[in-house]
Amino acid sequence: MSGTTPTAKTRLKRLHQRGAHDRATIDAILDAGLIAHVGFVFEGYPVVTPTLCWREGDHVYWHGSSASRMLRAAEGAEVCLTVTHLDALVCARSAFHHSANYRSVMLFGTAAKVAEAAQAAHLRAFVEGLYPGRWEALRPITAQELKATTTLMMPIDEASAKLRTGGPVDDAEDMDVPVWAGVLPLLTRAGAPEADATARAAGHAAPVLAARLERFFDRRASDRAR
Amino acid sequence: MSGTTPTAKTRLKRLHQRGAHDRATIDAILDAGLIAHVGFVFEGYPVVTPTLCWREGDHVYWHGSSASRMLRAAEGAEVCLTVTHLDALVCARSAFHHSANYRSVMLFGTAAKVAEAAQAAHLRAFVEGLYPGRWEALRPITAQELKATTTLMMPIDEASAKLRTGGPVDDAEDMDVPVWAGVLPLLTRAGAPEADATARAAGHAAPVLAARLERFFDRRASDRAR
Repeated sequence: MSGTTPTAKTRLKRLHQRGAHDRATIDAILDAGLIAHVGFVFEGYPVVTPTLCWREGDHVYWHGSSASRMLRAAEGAEVCLTVTHLDALVCARSAFHHSANYRSVMLFGTAAKVAEAAQAAHLRAFVEGLYPGRWEALRPITAQELKATTTLMMPIDEASAKLRTGGPVDDAEDMDVPVWAGVLPLLTRAGAPEADATARAAGHAAPVLAARLERFFDRRASDRAR
Repeated sequence: MSGTTPTAKTRLKRLHQRGAHDRATIDAILDAGLIAHVGFVFEGYPVVTPTLCWREGDHVYWHGSSASRMLRAAEGAEVCLTVTHLDALVCARSAFHHSANYRSVMLFGTAAKVAEAAQAAHLRAFVEGLYPGRWEALRPITAQELKATTTLMMPIDEASAKLRTGGPVDDAEDMDVPVWAGVLPLLTRAGAPEADATARAAGHAAPVLAARLERFFDRRASDRAR
């Protein structure tokens, strides 16, 4: 299986059984995510900004307004991009052994700006990744809009995944404590689509979009059982 | 209404209508969150770690193993703690006006270690905040377990909230583009509790815990409509 090579930043120091460096695990966690938290050093202090993100091959992308101070600050900077799924709360017989099931990926690297000429293709990949067929149904993006948008990217290179699955791991002498123990799963689902009040066109229908999101969350839910 | 005072770090530079500094808004977003992403500078590079977190009054807390390299590195360090809820995807008539509804809080400050003698009370507040009545049903926490646990805290002082609600904001000339436009809500819910296979005791029952989580997510869902 192809993998990333652990570095001083990504080598897992504790609980090795929870860690992974293989690309299949890393990619599945990234692909199950809609948002990332991007950290960088800004004027000497750490900043963590949430953003929608998407993966294409060996890179992760995020975007925003070209006027965004935070996006401009991240460009060319060392960043840590983290994607996390909280899958369940784990209830044990002692407070100490309570835990959470989760999947997370941390990427380290330098954020680079996508060239303006290449931006449309990446924004298309983002939209199509969520809603296949939608890009062509939209009013085409303009040169001015591309100018007003900054897309950043970083390689999936220095990366580590960390995950926990399964039930509580209690001390043997606690097994008869009269308290419920087990897993409380957390599920993210798409709710009923809310059409824009001023909508004059049906077109690419809401149920299609919602069904697509449901499949996204289905896959995400099944991933965690692996 | 009480509020935090904007500083150079927390003053919102763009889209002021999306920003807030009042404690009621900030606290509601923190309280609707189970996890935070904590960023700090470690050996010169930024690190963003996901962690469960909770609020008590004017402070936010998170905890982990005393052996955790990352927790030890955050102690005494300047951190940025960010809590984000992705509430919906917003579909517009143009790619450019697609957006997301979200609520997020960024806290800036120094992470301090909770004294060992005070730890149990805070861990109790965390457990009771999620599952009222559970702490007393558990096997009591031991001195050794408290030693093995590090709890960090930071004040809610330099803080800003940012949120987006509502439908797409399209250009007037795009209103007849034949594509569906509106909001696709994302909902987090508790799934069916999964009892530990070795469970010998019912005690504080699973449905109570699940119902409590459901109320938590109900409140979180209703918050976004405010």
